[in-house]
Amino acid sequence: MECVVGIDLGGTNVKGGVVAADGTIIVSRAIKTHASRGPEKVVTAMAAFVRELIDASGRTVTRGGIGAPGPLSQAQGMIFDSPNLKGWNNFPIVRRLAEESGISFVLENDANAACLGEKLFGAGKPFDPIVHLTLGTGTGGGVYLNGRLFTGPSGAGAELGHMTIDMHGLPCGCGAAGHLETFASDTGIRTFLAGALEKYPDSLLNNQGPENINFKTVKECADKADVLARLTYERFVYGLGVGIANLVNIFNPQAVILSGGIARQAPAFLPEVERIVKAQAFPVLTAELRIMVSTLGDDTGVLGAAACAIMN
Amino acid sequence: MECVVGIDLGGTNVKGGVVAADGTIIVSRAIKTHASRGPEKVVTAMAAFVRELIDASGRTVTRGGIGAPGPLSQAQGMIFDSPNLKGWNNFPIVRRLAEESGISFVLENDANAACLGEKLFGAGKPFDPIVHLTLGTGTGGGVYLNGRLFTGPSGAGAELGHMTIDMHGLPCGCGAAGHLETFASDTGIRTFLAGALEKYPDSLLNNQGPENINFKTVKECADKADVLARLTYERFVYGLGVGIANLVNIFNPQAVILSGGIARQAPAFLPEVERIVKAQAFPVLTAELRIMVSTLGDDTGVLGAAACAIMN
Repeated sequence: MECVVGIDLGGTNVKGGVVAADGTIIVSRAIKTHASRGPEKVVTAMAAFVRELIDASGRTVTRGGIGAPGPLSQAQGMIFDSPNLKGWNNFPIVRRLAEESGISFVLENDANAACLGEKLFGAGKPFDPIVHLTLGTGTGGGVYLNGRLFTGPSGAGAELGHMTIDMHGLPCGCGAAGHLETFASDTGIRTFLAGALEKYPDSLLNNQGPENINFKTVKECADKADVLARLTYERFVYGLGVGIANLVNIFNPQAVILSGGIARQAPAFLPEVERIVKAQAFPVLTAELRIMVSTLGDDTGVLGAAACAIMN
Repeated sequence: MECVVGIDLGGTNVKGGVVAADGTIIVSRAIKTHASRGPEKVVTAMAAFVRELIDASGRTVTRGGIGAPGPLSQAQGMIFDSPNLKGWNNFPIVRRLAEESGISFVLENDANAACLGEKLFGAGKPFDPIVHLTLGTGTGGGVYLNGRLFTGPSGAGAELGHMTIDMHGLPCGCGAAGHLETFASDTGIRTFLAGALEKYPDSLLNNQGPENINFKTVKECADKADVLARLTYERFVYGLGVGIANLVNIFNPQAVILSGGIARQAPAFLPEVERIVKAQAFPVLTAELRIMVSTLGDDTGVLGAAACAIMN
């Protein structure tokens, strides 16, 4: 069975693995990205990392996939200016990594790659269409439809987190207002609380450093009946429910799959999200719908990148 | 060249035509629906109308398409309970019309059919994906993608008008809040004004009977600097812009095409809608985008239904 390399290039870590075509992870490891050293130094380290993974797997590997934060161009194999990889603007990562490692690569937005990984190896196997949301620092989107990943003619579509659900809402990092991401991400939670914390001086959330505020800490304080944390949590759940209802009316997905750090806590909020979706989307579109959590867990990034290589 | 019948079944009129595969309309006519007589009587009248159209065309015609308001099932050839065709619940229109007319038919939601008509015969020819919005009594949606109409596994997807853009907004006919349809349709305009008219006793809109209030009358009063009409008009434009921006971030369409009665006035509002979309959607997704008005005009329904027969 063919094996490929899957590389999940993040702002902090590069995760990598050698993955068989059936999704078995032969070997997986991680290194620090040290993105601030600039792309050329990172590529040299990544190439050594790729060789190390292949050696450790004992397999013959000739190709791989890279999942990276966008914006990027799959066709040009190039990363554009990314908030998490500053100074990498227009960097031809596919060509440079191939030159240094001797392996050919395809590049894909990490949220799209995660969606494809779920389809090939995870919870999404039986389903088409699939709507995939990555709930973490931001809200990433991916759509699998008619037998393939849908990314639009530019390759940059399926930006499901950047859908206005509250036109009078908080500003999104992209400049628009009230996007799903302003509700269903750690960044959205922090933006909301930045304007609210001082009005609730007794809130337990004031005991966190602002940089430690995220879905997890909000959930912990909400579980202690903290009023502001409770409000923040319910705002998250409602926004996520409304956003998914929109995507159900649009895509009629057989499955909506949630991944990312926040999705680990999904058992706590999924029943409420399902109620909102059933109340707001058309019954004929929710009748067969499943809303589920990724089964790939921490391997989502590596398996998604490997899936892109396999499907190429 | 093959010719097909296109039937646009509305609550008030049945429009029909014999259409060649290149979109040439050989003959087209209309009859009253008289929907309240019940589906069996309407089908008998429709069958006679179909025979009359074919005779008038002088062509050999063996198949046709029906565009009808949803919800409906393409696969079962059946109309479910429709607000515009009361009492037609679960009516097997495809089977019954074939029996009575001797012609085989396919059935499609009229908004989807309009999208396919634009692709085959209208402004959409060179483009894929296409997002199509019908702006009239409601806000209908259609998506053409990867070489075919996208309607989802149930056939009832692409309900683009039923996308929340203002979660604290006005109720939509479907029960959810702040859908695009509550901004970008005559029904949305009437719902908005129902709560506002008495607060603006001097508004020219109070001179209209409530049943005459729609986009056209609002536009006329807005052009006379009526404050409430101006506000209503700007609410329409902003909502439409935000909704299209969402669809651009999601589908990365090459073209967004507007049809329906309201779209006739598009030259007045399209520049402002385009500015909103460019401000709110990702630049990489708006770079090649065209927002345009249907070139099929009053023939959209008949040509859309014919397109469904041709593509079947």
